[in-house]
Amino acid sequence: MEINYDNIKVIGFDADDTLWVNETYFREAEDEIGRLLSKYETPNKIDQELFKKEISNLPLYGYGIKAFTLSMVEVALELSNYTVSNKTIEAILNIGKNMLNKPVELLDGVEEVLENLSKKYRLILATKGDLLDQERKLEKSGLTHYFHHIEVLSDKQEDNYSQMLNRLEVKPSEFLMIGNSLKSDVLPLVNLKAQAMHVPFHTTWAHEQVTEKETNGKDYKTINTLTELLKLIN
Amino acid sequence: MEINYDNIKVIGFDADDTLWVNETYFREAEDEIGRLLSKYETPNKIDQELFKKEISNLPLYGYGIKAFTLSMVEVALELSNYTVSNKTIEAILNIGKNMLNKPVELLDGVEEVLENLSKKYRLILATKGDLLDQERKLEKSGLTHYFHHIEVLSDKQEDNYSQMLNRLEVKPSEFLMIGNSLKSDVLPLVNLKAQAMHVPFHTTWAHEQVTEKETNGKDYKTINTLTELLKLIN
Repeated sequence: MEINYDNIKVIGFDADDTLWVNETYFREAEDEIGRLLSKYETPNKIDQELFKKEISNLPLYGYGIKAFTLSMVEVALELSNYTVSNKTIEAILNIGKNMLNKPVELLDGVEEVLENLSKKYRLILATKGDLLDQERKLEKSGLTHYFHHIEVLSDKQEDNYSQMLNRLEVKPSEFLMIGNSLKSDVLPLVNLKAQAMHVPFHTTWAHEQVTEKETNGKDYKTINTLTELLKLIN
Repeated sequence: MEINYDNIKVIGFDADDTLWVNETYFREAEDEIGRLLSKYETPNKIDQELFKKEISNLPLYGYGIKAFTLSMVEVALELSNYTVSNKTIEAILNIGKNMLNKPVELLDGVEEVLENLSKKYRLILATKGDLLDQERKLEKSGLTHYFHHIEVLSDKQEDNYSQMLNRLEVKPSEFLMIGNSLKSDVLPLVNLKAQAMHVPFHTTWAHEQVTEKETNGKDYKTINTLTELLKLIN
């Protein structure tokens, strides 16, 4: 079925791994903590325990690098049976600080796509994670002027999007969301009867992965690069 | 001079220490880390070093409990000369978790004031800190339905307010901000030619304190309790 984009007035872009590289830095951080704790456990076990810790802390800490750093410290204490050195804990805090200080690396075609679409549509950035960190990345990216505004959501479930659309006074049928995560950027919108487009990134955090059953029969389009957008909706 | 509130259409409320208790929990946390690190330093020195650490981490971490927790861990490593026990670090992580789990304790008159004013004005919650934590507190407070929406700002300087008013399409002259911090809730608004009212809380974080010089000649009103609002603008 051809999806009709004629009603679209507002386009929402996810930020991390849609406009710029993000997950790659988390993978690098996991490699680093794997090395730091290598005398206690295998990298695979450390990965698994860190993932479990992140998920169990998610209701309390939410998403973002500070939450991730606190979970790394907790895992280091537990996996070392409370024998990890203070210097290793400091090194873990520094992993987090280095992540916060990373430059913003735009993905291919981002600037061209935003420049074109901003002439015809109202563009918003809809992201989750840490407010200050996301604002900082947007500023570093040089893309601020293309966006009407930035929405940092505490989570990206149907409710969060529904409240956002209400606040923006935009009907679901007038809204198109674009992002790399089926779970966070695509399926909630399809369920709200808005439009959504999937642009996969090469790495996806386990928490964002969905089963085929969840995507089965859902109405959204997948594109390989952001520039394909221009052929579809410009 | 009598301030004229006739043009006001939108009222912004700060949240922490204006609607509910917050700073008290940080003071309690400081007492707790003072006890945990008492074999290394005096409580006074620990307080001072923690404050310095928070301020130096502020550009990177921003406000909120996760930032505070990470700064506490760093101070524990440094003040103990990298000899602090793993169990103490775990106890510090738990100080943060307990803060995030605190119940919301409303200040006097809050519900009455919001109920009255929400009939005549559009109320928004304008707060800084951690998005998830602020959303959670609002939900726990039972006050959500009085607010048109919640604005979590990464900081509360003139620029942040100015962008917020633009986004809301509200003129400064139509906006009244109410809060306990002269630095964050009052002076930036006065400088933008919006209205502001100061409701002091008994404890103010050192970072929020201002000098008499900064408030000298500025046009804002101070009230002792939120209920005084009803006499002034209802």
